[in-house]
Amino acid sequence: MNIKTLAAQLGISVSTVSKALNDSYEISAETKKKVLDLAALLNYTPNAYAGSLRNKKSSNIAVVLPEVADSFFSQAINGIESVAQEKGYHVIVYLTHEKQHKEQSILNDFRNGRVDGVLMSLSSETTSDEHICRLKDKGIPLVFFDRVPEKMMAASVVTDDFEAAYKATVQLIGKGCERIVFLSLSDKLAIINHRVEGFKKALSDAGRTYHEHMLVNCSLNEQQNYETLKAVLTRTERPDAVIASAEKTATDIYSICNQLGLNIPADLKVIAFASLPIAALLSPPLSTIVQPAFEIGKTAAALLFKALEKPGFKLKNEYVILPSVFIERKSSCP
Amino acid sequence: MNIKTLAAQLGISVSTVSKALNDSYEISAETKKKVLDLAALLNYTPNAYAGSLRNKKSSNIAVVLPEVADSFFSQAINGIESVAQEKGYHVIVYLTHEKQHKEQSILNDFRNGRVDGVLMSLSSETTSDEHICRLKDKGIPLVFFDRVPEKMMAASVVTDDFEAAYKATVQLIGKGCERIVFLSLSDKLAIINHRVEGFKKALSDAGRTYHEHMLVNCSLNEQQNYETLKAVLTRTERPDAVIASAEKTATDIYSICNQLGLNIPADLKVIAFASLPIAALLSPPLSTIVQPAFEIGKTAAALLFKALEKPGFKLKNEYVILPSVFIERKSSCP
Repeated sequence: MNIKTLAAQLGISVSTVSKALNDSYEISAETKKKVLDLAALLNYTPNAYAGSLRNKKSSNIAVVLPEVADSFFSQAINGIESVAQEKGYHVIVYLTHEKQHKEQSILNDFRNGRVDGVLMSLSSETTSDEHICRLKDKGIPLVFFDRVPEKMMAASVVTDDFEAAYKATVQLIGKGCERIVFLSLSDKLAIINHRVEGFKKALSDAGRTYHEHMLVNCSLNEQQNYETLKAVLTRTERPDAVIASAEKTATDIYSICNQLGLNIPADLKVIAFASLPIAALLSPPLSTIVQPAFEIGKTAAALLFKALEKPGFKLKNEYVILPSVFIERKSSCP
Repeated sequence: MNIKTLAAQLGISVSTVSKALNDSYEISAETKKKVLDLAALLNYTPNAYAGSLRNKKSSNIAVVLPEVADSFFSQAINGIESVAQEKGYHVIVYLTHEKQHKEQSILNDFRNGRVDGVLMSLSSETTSDEHICRLKDKGIPLVFFDRVPEKMMAASVVTDDFEAAYKATVQLIGKGCERIVFLSLSDKLAIINHRVEGFKKALSDAGRTYHEHMLVNCSLNEQQNYETLKAVLTRTERPDAVIASAEKTATDIYSICNQLGLNIPADLKVIAFASLPIAALLSPPLSTIVQPAFEIGKTAAALLFKALEKPGFKLKNEYVILPSVFIERKSSCP
């Protein structure tokens, strides 16, 4: 089965079939449909044309995200859309709700060409990469952003997680904090691990010893999380500062402090990795490490379109690091 | 071209073709594929089978939203997913970014069976309903929530917008506010118009006269919006209270008050239609009219699946109103 068989069965020239498979403007929509339908019916997998056939088929790119309730992801979507709109593509959003099995099921769904390319941020549960490899094997371009896989070669757009956590820790040490706790989101995510490493390095550079109780693993269960954080803030040796690795954790800390009658920043200083546009309106205003969410989305989408447009482009070698910005507000200032 | 032609060409029985088109468990995946592929190739449009053929094809339902940065929509998505997961469906999210042309283009894309059903909240720009009618004509079930079309018969899940705005206005009048302003989002959305009607009725029931300057139309341009709101708060006859019909408008008001040195609630009382989980953490805590976002999403999805599962179900007659809850906090209390 090759392009000649297709041409013969349809009674048109090989060149017309080739152009139709390439979505050439010289070929009518009707002819293109005939060619693509027969190719599908006969399970014909074009070789050289695989790229362009797929490229033009759906005009959709997928964004696979753990959630949208976080400001980082909603801003990243806008960055992605800013590129996709220009290219005439729809952006469709799939949510994993932080579940590996949902992520697997969504990616499996893409293997039949439903989308032309995928932008993705891993779920905090994901440990396997089989579903990712299977998608890559199908030749569907894939770019990770923020929550990227550590063990495989994959196009990635990230921020300076190690440095940002290092700097935040140094800030808190400089303000005399003695019992700083890092609130992690998952021990499976590379970005969180980099942040934890930055935290540890800052402690060690200040001549301090890292202890396990300085790292608190938050869970995905909202109620359980609240209890965990409350237990941390009622320890005998109560922390005098926290670095939260997610927006939601930081606002939970605010609620718990209100409930326990603890004053931020007098009793507890708070710095959070957060893209919350209203951080300055909280009581007190929240010090944030702001990732350039829009830029991250935009950069990841630009890489994906490079791969869609240039067949020889080696996507997997791309690794972009964009800097975050620390904004100090009252929550970390005495 | 009918089911018999398909059966003859494939060399199988009419009953087998029928069952394959119905996605019967008695038929192998291989046979189903053959039948569906040939049906597609020959542009065969099944009549009685159209429903079930389409129903089982994608296992995707679409959610078409203006944006995800608003807490209402992110919570509604979770409500939708809670139903879809149980049914083994993926939820895919399309964003219109409040543009009618994007909404049209997205809906056009659905007409080839990409999704089995659609849940939708209108863009604030949408005035035409042609794209909606075309989708309905294709027999793809469609349920609106929150921002529903007013002029057409369509399944809708909404909240008590008129009553909620009425009550909020009565509250503010009761606290002695003399110059209450309603901050609208769009004059094209039925829900906003219902809220404006509730506002006007409360004024008139209190023996007050409604004037045009009491209604401020916010735009979609963020910068322009900020300027509009700032102009309102620096009027000679400055309002002493605002009712914001969206979360973002309320937080903009907070920022502008900070900038102008106005105290909430002393100088300006604020009540907002908002599902912001951190309303209580703002400075000062924000009084909110909370729509049951999760329940709205869940109810809309349940209606959609009823239509997908019961071919005779008259979706368009469904109209569900769920009550909102007023939570008074410091922003509206002297």
